[in-house]
Amino acid sequence: MKLGGSVLTEKEKPFTPNLRNLNRLAREIAGGFDPQHRRLVLVHGAGSFGHPITKRTGIHKGLLSPEDLVSFATVQRWQNQWNVIVVEALQNQQVPAIPIQPSSHAVMEKGRIVSFSLDVIEGVLELGMLPVLYGVPAYDKALGSTILSGDQIVSYLGEKLKADKVILGTNVDGLFTSDPKEEPDAELIETVTRKDLVEVRRHLVEPSGADVTGGMSGKFREIVRLAERGITCLIINAGTAGTVEAALTGEKVKGTLIRL
Amino acid sequence: MKLGGSVLTEKEKPFTPNLRNLNRLAREIAGGFDPQHRRLVLVHGAGSFGHPITKRTGIHKGLLSPEDLVSFATVQRWQNQWNVIVVEALQNQQVPAIPIQPSSHAVMEKGRIVSFSLDVIEGVLELGMLPVLYGVPAYDKALGSTILSGDQIVSYLGEKLKADKVILGTNVDGLFTSDPKEEPDAELIETVTRKDLVEVRRHLVEPSGADVTGGMSGKFREIVRLAERGITCLIINAGTAGTVEAALTGEKVKGTLIRL
Repeated sequence: MKLGGSVLTEKEKPFTPNLRNLNRLAREIAGGFDPQHRRLVLVHGAGSFGHPITKRTGIHKGLLSPEDLVSFATVQRWQNQWNVIVVEALQNQQVPAIPIQPSSHAVMEKGRIVSFSLDVIEGVLELGMLPVLYGVPAYDKALGSTILSGDQIVSYLGEKLKADKVILGTNVDGLFTSDPKEEPDAELIETVTRKDLVEVRRHLVEPSGADVTGGMSGKFREIVRLAERGITCLIINAGTAGTVEAALTGEKVKGTLIRL
Repeated sequence: MKLGGSVLTEKEKPFTPNLRNLNRLAREIAGGFDPQHRRLVLVHGAGSFGHPITKRTGIHKGLLSPEDLVSFATVQRWQNQWNVIVVEALQNQQVPAIPIQPSSHAVMEKGRIVSFSLDVIEGVLELGMLPVLYGVPAYDKALGSTILSGDQIVSYLGEKLKADKVILGTNVDGLFTSDPKEEPDAELIETVTRKDLVEVRRHLVEPSGADVTGGMSGKFREIVRLAERGITCLIINAGTAGTVEAALTGEKVKGTLIRL
């Protein structure tokens, strides 16, 4: 499961968690956490702990100056600080949520993962824990630095760990036929199958001020990558109380189900 | 270089950095940091962020109950929080200190590393950064969990990265002929060569209440392992102002030099 930074942080306030959502979601995850029956990996986005500082320092475009190295390191520190806050909320609910810093072992090339260590993730899943990964700045063989987004982590892990399902908790109900904020008759797309792909992609809403990880079209690209491998993807609104817990326990929830 | 938790934290106060030492040492590292001429990796101990909580929860002895999983995860969270504090002090001095969580990729077996990812460490060294690793609880194939101490990380990296020198910043001036706190005529051993090994080991002072990582004899075992591979080891007192910077720049400093 991925939880978007837009739900977990205060979008307009840098380095500020949305504690109400975070604590509620921690309780929902505790409610749906059942490692004996379903293994779960959690990936969270950076939200206001990552996007403003990344945009300001420009490190998602690679490294140019010695000062960029300090910026790269500083952005990484903020992501670890943010992850500590997230896992603390989960641990407070007695969930054995263990931090995994992806950038301590992921090697990237031109923005894509070329090597990544899965052994610890598989090991702690076996023990019955919840590995918690997160979007980070990462070492890139070609560019120096790049962003390893939560979305790319989800896509990579979903495939490598042969996930049955990937749940994407966002701040919208799912994919719509048009922008629901602009057009009152926009309709939620409940199911996407192979024949719908072209049509859905054409209608994808790109919010103004797309973030450093590629916005909704970046997300959709990763989802399609997963769905192509037979993994069911479910986009839900993690901002709506109860949705995440219901999705984890397999109840029917409002959202968009992608199964190709 | 390893910096001991005893210097960086308030030993008697759990989860409390010694900010005076930490900020001074950050300035000394900034003064001695010269990545174009000397690559440097920093490893720091857990001190009061790790030892009390580890001893209390017993996770260094492996995992027994589901509650132990939450303890394991909680101890890991505290180590990441502590590392954030250390790298922030370094970044404040414009050192590109990048956190590397060893337990996100290190696999242990009966307390020893069996796999460890070096690619990112080598990559960021190439970029001119300072990777900062730290003692952590870690996944163990045999025990469930174990402690990957800063000392073992130093020993492993020193060998794998073919370090010229390993500097151990502790809270004592080096190895002594007897316990300097007990015997006023105890003398600092300035140099240890192969013929001195047995004698030195016999005199090793084991402080009462040895820590969860094996105390001074654990440290000495790791040092000898390195020295056997031709790496010069220097034990210095990081609590004494100027010692770390001098050691980094290659000046002669008070301490114990081990070269077999």
